[in-house]
Amino acid sequence: MSFYVYLSGEIHTDWRDEIQRGAEAAGLDIVFTSAVTDHAASDAAGDHLGEESNPFWRDHKSSKVNAIRTKTLIEQSDLVVVRFGDKYKQWNAAFDAGYCAALGKPYVTLHGEEIIHPLKEVDAQAMAWATTTDQVVEILRYVTKA
Amino acid sequence: MSFYVYLSGEIHTDWRDEIQRGAEAAGLDIVFTSAVTDHAASDAAGDHLGEESNPFWRDHKSSKVNAIRTKTLIEQSDLVVVRFGDKYKQWNAAFDAGYCAALGKPYVTLHGEEIIHPLKEVDAQAMAWATTTDQVVEILRYVTKA
Amino acid sequence: MSFYVYLSGEIHTDWRDEIQRGAEAAGLDIVFTSAVTDHAASDAAGDHLGEESNPFWRDHKSSKVNAIRTKTLIEQSDLVVVRFGDKYKQWNAAFDAGYCAALGKPYVTLHGEEIIHPLKEVDAQAMAWATTTDQVVEILRYVTKA
Amino acid sequence: MSFYVYLSGEIHTDWRDEIQRGAEAAGLDIVFTSAVTDHAASDAAGDHLGEESNPFWRDHKSSKVNAIRTKTLIEQSDLVVVRFGDKYKQWNAAFDAGYCAALGKPYVTLHGEEIIHPLKEVDAQAMAWATTTDQVVEILRYVTKA
Amino acid sequence: MSFYVYLSGEIHTDWRDEIQRGAEAAGLDIVFTSAVTDHAASDAAGDHLGEESNPFWRDHKSSKVNAIRTKTLIEQSDLVVVRFGDKYKQWNAAFDAGYCAALGKPYVTLHGEEIIHPLKEVDAQAMAWATTTDQVVEILRYVTKA
Amino acid sequence: MSFYVYLSGEIHTDWRDEIQRGAEAAGLDIVFTSAVTDHAASDAAGDHLGEESNPFWRDHKSSKVNAIRTKTLIEQSDLVVVRFGDKYKQWNAAFDAGYCAALGKPYVTLHGEEIIHPLKEVDAQAMAWATTTDQVVEILRYVTKA
Amino acid sequence: MSFYVYLSGEIHTDWRDEIQRGAEAAGLDIVFTSAVTDHAASDAAGDHLGEESNPFWRDHKSSKVNAIRTKTLIEQSDLVVVRFGDKYKQWNAAFDAGYCAALGKPYVTLHGEEIIHPLKEVDAQAMAWATTTDQVVEILRYVTKA
Amino acid sequence: MSFYVYLSGEIHTDWRDEIQRGAEAAGLDIVFTSAVTDHAASDAAGDHLGEESNPFWRDHKSSKVNAIRTKTLIEQSDLVVVRFGDKYKQWNAAFDAGYCAALGKPYVTLHGEEIIHPLKEVDAQAMAWATTTDQVVEILRYVTKA
Repeated sequence: MSFYVYLSGEIHTDWRDEIQRGAEAAGLDIVFTSAVTDHAASDAAGDHLGEESNPFWRDHKSSKVNAIRTKTLIEQSDLVVVRFGDKYKQWNAAFDAGYCAALGKPYVTLHGEEIIHPLKEVDAQAMAWATTTDQVVEILRYVTKA
Repeated sequence: MSFYVYLSGEIHTDWRDEIQRGAEAAGLDIVFTSAVTDHAASDAAGDHLGEESNPFWRDHKSSKVNAIRTKTLIEQSDLVVVRFGDKYKQWNAAFDAGYCAALGKPYVTLHGEEIIHPLKEVDAQAMAWATTTDQVVEILRYVTKA
Repeated sequence: MSFYVYLSGEIHTDWRDEIQRGAEAAGLDIVFTSAVTDHAASDAAGDHLGEESNPFWRDHKSSKVNAIRTKTLIEQSDLVVVRFGDKYKQWNAAFDAGYCAALGKPYVTLHGEEIIHPLKEVDAQAMAWATTTDQVVEILRYVTKA
Repeated sequence: MSFYVYLSGEIHTDWRDEIQRGAEAAGLDIVFTSAVTDHAASDAAGDHLGEESNPFWRDHKSSKVNAIRTKTLIEQSDLVVVRFGDKYKQWNAAFDAGYCAALGKPYVTLHGEEIIHPLKEVDAQAMAWATTTDQVVEILRYVTKA
Repeated sequence: MSFYVYLSGEIHTDWRDEIQRGAEAAGLDIVFTSAVTDHAASDAAGDHLGEESNPFWRDHKSSKVNAIRTKTLIEQSDLVVVRFGDKYKQWNAAFDAGYCAALGKPYVTLHGEEIIHPLKEVDAQAMAWATTTDQVVEILRYVTKA
Repeated sequence: MSFYVYLSGEIHTDWRDEIQRGAEAAGLDIVFTSAVTDHAASDAAGDHLGEESNPFWRDHKSSKVNAIRTKTLIEQSDLVVVRFGDKYKQWNAAFDAGYCAALGKPYVTLHGEEIIHPLKEVDAQAMAWATTTDQVVEILRYVTKA
Repeated sequence: MSFYVYLSGEIHTDWRDEIQRGAEAAGLDIVFTSAVTDHAASDAAGDHLGEESNPFWRDHKSSKVNAIRTKTLIEQSDLVVVRFGDKYKQWNAAFDAGYCAALGKPYVTLHGEEIIHPLKEVDAQAMAWATTTDQVVEILRYVTKA
Repeated sequence: MSFYVYLSGEIHTDWRDEIQRGAEAAGLDIVFTSAVTDHAASDAAGDHLGEESNPFWRDHKSSKVNAIRTKTLIEQSDLVVVRFGDKYKQWNAAFDAGYCAALGKPYVTLHGEEIIHPLKEVDAQAMAWATTTDQVVEILRYVTKA
């Protein structure tokens, strides 16, 4: 069986590509999934269902369409990697981590040292905290080795 | 049966008191619970288990001691109110919301209009979005009326 | 322990009162619960959260506030009675029945003979089909006797 | 992995075909399932188990045979589309929606504007409300894109 | 908290009374529950819902009304005692045992040595096999002692 | 996906073969599973783990080894067929039915009219009652048709 | 609501008393439970069900009678404290910890520094590691404070 | 479908190889999985995430990385074999057994007669106790035969 890894969080750096390239280089049998990472497309995911004058409802509709995808992929995954960058609120990443915690789905976090304190509840339930994508690849290599 | 409400999130304003006073004034049979909201005590919750030189592990130990309390209280609640203020990262609040979502535990959010967009995934799974504590009290009054 | 019975469906006749009076007359130790049955109040349950120009969103907000109440009460009940009258769509009643079926929560239906065929899927998962409130009271008397 | 979509509800128009053709045209890797949509066959699904003089029991037997199929297919699906037309009671569609809600299975509704109000509880738990089959196809395209 | 014990199976001897008297004599804080053990009343539990010419449907209706009671009581119990006598098929007792096994609900069996072999699958999942009601009382005394 | 059907109960007639031949003749994509139906082998399933002087323990060990197989196969199945013949106690068949009921796993029963009454609790939770293997094959044909 | 704490593990020192006395001294509203800690009584818990010549079956019967008690108490608890002493195998303590981990039931461990390495998998899923009973009392005081 | 067997416990003898060779010799369609059994690699599984001066945290990090692998493999398995040797504490093996018990995952134990008594709680929930790898292979042959 392949190992399924869902990559959650930050969409402004290429950390997903780095992990995927690293896994490929290591010859790992892993299927990577994630939310739609095209920011504009994601914000507009519900627009075709009718225009909204109120931005709350526009966001609401798009978030729910996105959730159809993300809920299924998270539940099908064997491991979730949750990335927190140095910008933006990223509450969706913390939300995904809480979702995993309640499901008993293992997740690891990927973030810098400067945000250890505000992430302490998220890290407390994680299986590991990594600071580099190489470390994440190494975890994947280890947990999937024959 | 009393109705159990867990109050999650911001600890720097007195929103919890406002809701509790409002509920009391309305004569509602509600038991309110929350994490320990004394910031210093919460950060130090694990200190008595031994000193740590590395701040990551100090946070780790305290977060887990806190989680013994919060996990139990969230799971026992009938409704969770998740408050996002205008300061700090508040990832623990988003984490609690995701935890509720996965459990199928109803929650409502309480936050200002200026953070609608970053909270869209959190709001999408909520049963309501309130901007004032009076609105929260009104929800509680409505859902618990005979 | 008291026996908890949630009364779902039609709000235009006094079938709930009939069952409650019958149970009281029989001296049964039963706690009855239901959605808020004041139609106007129910439709307006979310209005205090802000006005909506689009009727879809007004309904959406009120339905979710109502769901905080109904979800909790259904899950806490030992039995659900689902009433279908001869008017209106009553999709919420069928929705509650499906919700119960998935939870493994026992429910009985209460409806006339003329709607047997369209209710066949709902009745197929029910523990009983009653046509009068007296029959429902008799079921309650039987299942709670010492 | 293919994405599994269960199509629930109305059997008198060709909305299922429209969605399937649309998905095929878009090259989506989706497996569509549904109840047996041949109305006469569905009503007669239990007839081979013995004749019934009472129409209630004929319906009962057929509904349960149908439920063997539908329960399995709904539980195996990643998304359920629930269609409400402008005729008939369609309580089975609302029942399926409630069933999904309790399982935490994502569903979207497909119906016209004129029945927004009676469907408010069903829509409140849905991930989206569509009015055309093209919109459903667009949702499917979006949530399954690589 | 009281300890809840559901007494399942044979209704033709007074084994339930023996256990209850023994528990009372030992001063145990136990609440005993069971199906309605008045055989005629049990067979007729659904009769008030309308007469049936076909005995299958009469049994069907009564069994389901009984199941409203038994399902709730079994799920609320801490332990189930399943009694097999030397007469009758007693498939409902074996059914209750299987139900408990799937729920992870502990049960003990109470039966004579002459039916060890046909009960081997039922005994294999039981927490104990007793041959006398005194042994059951002793188990209850032991597991509830302070 | 293939449809998985577990065949539980009587091992003294060739009803399993009849159903499998019927399904094959109808071209159905079904995988049939069952307990080991070689009676002597089944009774001796635990013998290689060491001799037992007490027949209770011999049965105990064999039943548990058999349960490794049957538990997995029942849980993987989409439908269980439970057969009651006219001989023997067949408590294991009723146990399997109760196990299915608690899991929400659909099952159908296969038995003659003369044992309707003692099987009423088992039939009450079944999706259908068949008296011939042809009827079972017809159910399988219907629920798996495209 | 009282807070329920199950005390698992070592029965040769008075650590349970120390914790209970400490909690009482601190005025905490906690109900403590545990297995029967009278070693001889525990080993003999199944003896009244019939003598066994093979020590394996004697242990088997007693362990299962004990499990009726411990399973219920662990599942009802809000927190489990698992104590490992410096003698004996104590596999039952590790078993209880694994049981809690799978249930998502919070537990803390209580053991000396010299067995950190062999307990690493047990500690990895724990909410805290304490070395003294005073530390455990402090955790209880913290997590139950108003 | 292949049958999945997770091999838990002792890593100092070649019992895993013996079982795998035996299964292969018998032509069984079984996929065997286990934790990483290279002791040094396992202890160092988290080292690449940063050095730790405190051995507790080094063990903690490695155990959690290992748990990503073992949790997934245990949950995917159809049967777990738990081996206890004559050396070391092997609390992780007992922990895995408890984990399986709570999940309702069947497991068998493999150990010598001299440790029957300390393993009584672990054996009490097992489906079988074997003393040789040949016996385990025979169980596998039996439960997977067509």
